[in-house]
Amino acid sequence: MQKPSIPKGTRDFGPIEMARRNYIFDTIRSVFRLYGFRQIETPAMEQMSTLMGKYGEEGDKLLFRIQNSGEKAGEAPEKGLRYDLTVPFARYVVQHREEIAVPFRRFQIQPVWRADRPQKGRYREFYQCDADIIGTDSLVSEYELVKIIQEVFRRFGVRVCLHVNNRKVLAGIAEVIGAPDKIIDITVAIDKLDKIGVDAVNAELRERGLSDEAVAALQPILHQEAGITNQSKIAGLRQFLATSEVGMKGIEELETLFGLIGDEEWVELDLCLARGLNYYTGAIFEVKALDVQIGSISGGGRYDNLTGVFGMPGMSGVGISFGADRIYDVLNELNLYPEAMMGSTQVLFATFGPDELRYALRWAEALRQEGIATEVYPEPTKMKKQMGYADQLNIPYVAIVGGDEMAQNKVMLKNMTTGNQQLVALNELITLIPNH
Amino acid sequence: MQKPSIPKGTRDFGPIEMARRNYIFDTIRSVFRLYGFRQIETPAMEQMSTLMGKYGEEGDKLLFRIQNSGEKAGEAPEKGLRYDLTVPFARYVVQHREEIAVPFRRFQIQPVWRADRPQKGRYREFYQCDADIIGTDSLVSEYELVKIIQEVFRRFGVRVCLHVNNRKVLAGIAEVIGAPDKIIDITVAIDKLDKIGVDAVNAELRERGLSDEAVAALQPILHQEAGITNQSKIAGLRQFLATSEVGMKGIEELETLFGLIGDEEWVELDLCLARGLNYYTGAIFEVKALDVQIGSISGGGRYDNLTGVFGMPGMSGVGISFGADRIYDVLNELNLYPEAMMGSTQVLFATFGPDELRYALRWAEALRQEGIATEVYPEPTKMKKQMGYADQLNIPYVAIVGGDEMAQNKVMLKNMTTGNQQLVALNELITLIPNH
Repeated sequence: MQKPSIPKGTRDFGPIEMARRNYIFDTIRSVFRLYGFRQIETPAMEQMSTLMGKYGEEGDKLLFRIQNSGEKAGEAPEKGLRYDLTVPFARYVVQHREEIAVPFRRFQIQPVWRADRPQKGRYREFYQCDADIIGTDSLVSEYELVKIIQEVFRRFGVRVCLHVNNRKVLAGIAEVIGAPDKIIDITVAIDKLDKIGVDAVNAELRERGLSDEAVAALQPILHQEAGITNQSKIAGLRQFLATSEVGMKGIEELETLFGLIGDEEWVELDLCLARGLNYYTGAIFEVKALDVQIGSISGGGRYDNLTGVFGMPGMSGVGISFGADRIYDVLNELNLYPEAMMGSTQVLFATFGPDELRYALRWAEALRQEGIATEVYPEPTKMKKQMGYADQLNIPYVAIVGGDEMAQNKVMLKNMTTGNQQLVALNELITLIPNH
Repeated sequence: MQKPSIPKGTRDFGPIEMARRNYIFDTIRSVFRLYGFRQIETPAMEQMSTLMGKYGEEGDKLLFRIQNSGEKAGEAPEKGLRYDLTVPFARYVVQHREEIAVPFRRFQIQPVWRADRPQKGRYREFYQCDADIIGTDSLVSEYELVKIIQEVFRRFGVRVCLHVNNRKVLAGIAEVIGAPDKIIDITVAIDKLDKIGVDAVNAELRERGLSDEAVAALQPILHQEAGITNQSKIAGLRQFLATSEVGMKGIEELETLFGLIGDEEWVELDLCLARGLNYYTGAIFEVKALDVQIGSISGGGRYDNLTGVFGMPGMSGVGISFGADRIYDVLNELNLYPEAMMGSTQVLFATFGPDELRYALRWAEALRQEGIATEVYPEPTKMKKQMGYADQLNIPYVAIVGGDEMAQNKVMLKNMTTGNQQLVALNELITLIPNH
């Protein structure tokens, strides 16, 4: 007999985990909708030709491939599982270009799959929650994503810091320090500043071929003064980047965006934020929780050419992705789930015999008509067993039905928190159940 | 340049389709919860050993297999995509047996994948919406599933007929006509009665090795009088099955279930309902829409041994599965989507210049605080273009902002349905937007 298990890196979600996860998804979805985003879904499987070459060499290796029985083993599979939501979205935009009104504000909440080595907090199946605005290069879009981030974490009750940077500024820095061709090496290295520290970043920069002069010139960026205002940082950068056209364009964008955002303490211009993905071309974002050490819990940025690889050039956009699994860990650690949310069944009927059971079924239907989630224990078995079931599932009220209660057209309602019991009629019972 | 496409048998869902699908899933989910069911989710991929041999030889061939790059092509893949929600549920129950309180009322709404030949109305990726009660053989569970079916389709506004039968009755019939070993052949054949007619069913029965006498003895079952009550049918069956122990047990179960259901015109005892799946052992159900020709839109039944194949015998249960894709087709054909549901964005701000745009962003935040889904057109471009966007997306109100409106601290609100315009202050605007 087989002992069952699930593939490594995947998870089952039981009722309590599901209630928590639904709370996270519902909150994010509500905010997306409030800002006028429209939901789409794409298939779990995409053509391999859609996926290959979009995530770098490393990414290609992490794709799950799908075979059906028509294909011989050894034949190259034509399909693969979705690796993120961005490439399927780009494919969607090109395929449905005739139906789409731009600017297109789309959101998408679906699982993705990566054949990463499973480890703590990293899974092979996990959800992404993405919102993008495409078809406009107005910085108002960046601003609205900042407001969405603020509202989502306000609703969760999680204190966060939003780190903002701009890829054009990073390109300008590369130019100014005399290493314009090293922009990718520079961003990859300084992206690690938080994790490995400034000395290791400098070593990596030299390894990646930057001259000692270039590394020296970069130091003011790596040693930003803590606590100075975003405006002062921008002023400093404006001097540093004065000779770089792209750098000054980046400064302009930062000024516009911070002008819209205003003076917000939770938003920080962070010149060491780079974000690994190379398709970003303007603003980049990363959100960190203040009260939990967990790394980035959402991030995104501006890209100039989402759909070029599918033959549709010039589609600019900006997007944000919320990491549901990390947010789940943060809410768990801070114990921030609303109490009411966990309420599934509110009343369980427990009965002493088959006639009482039939009586309870009628009452249960009446409660459900009132929107009260109700169960009837399906057998008139030992009362202890029925009460134990209510206990185990944290059902707050048990309506006990014996012959006496039935004769009076009532039930004995037990409040499982206080232990109090009272004999009540149907209309009383309905008014006694809170929050339905 | 590649022209993108998606794998055959899969679908993209755009915003309007998503709103409709969400309406279907939300409705079913609400009813499941009202009846005290608890949600679980299982991974998209299961071990091949979990899946193989559970769906018959045909089913094995329809499994999608998953390879990751660590595996050499030609090596047998260890993982496959979920083919239904029942086998993963059985696996879940065995794996989490220590945490589960029985009776366990679980629901699960997730996609499944089958390498079927794609055709109209049949997809390779589709959603199932399952609810099961396990760990009790009380017929109250069957009754509650009937109530769930009734409530779900009442909420949709779809008139349905619920066909009910019992596998023990079918086994009794096989016994009585002298072909007890032919129960599977008989059920497979009479399951097709609706599609191929009584003569073809008789021919198939003979082909499957039933004697002429057995086929003759079966005719009263195949020629049920239309329009007689369920009670009369049961009475007739009671005589027909008098000599069969299992048959009489089935009669008892039917009597109990119909006793609980009472006299409901929409529920029909249908002796020709068999359902293909051989794991059913008691009641079986199938729901058909009365006003659309589309076949079964949900179905289920009682099974005695859900988890035996995973080494945990004696777990009885009963389940129902709603076919979201067919329900979608039915609601489309009958045009039964509630109007209000489609409402995404309620107000679009359209502006004449950059100052007006910043002004609009502040107003939009105020509207969102009130729960009104709001967009700001991100560029102060041609008014015609901004209005065209609102038109294309069926946004019901456009708030137009020019210098005059700004000077008065107002906006010009245009009702896109009537064409009426009025100059309003923020608090007036909020009261004018319905249903938020």
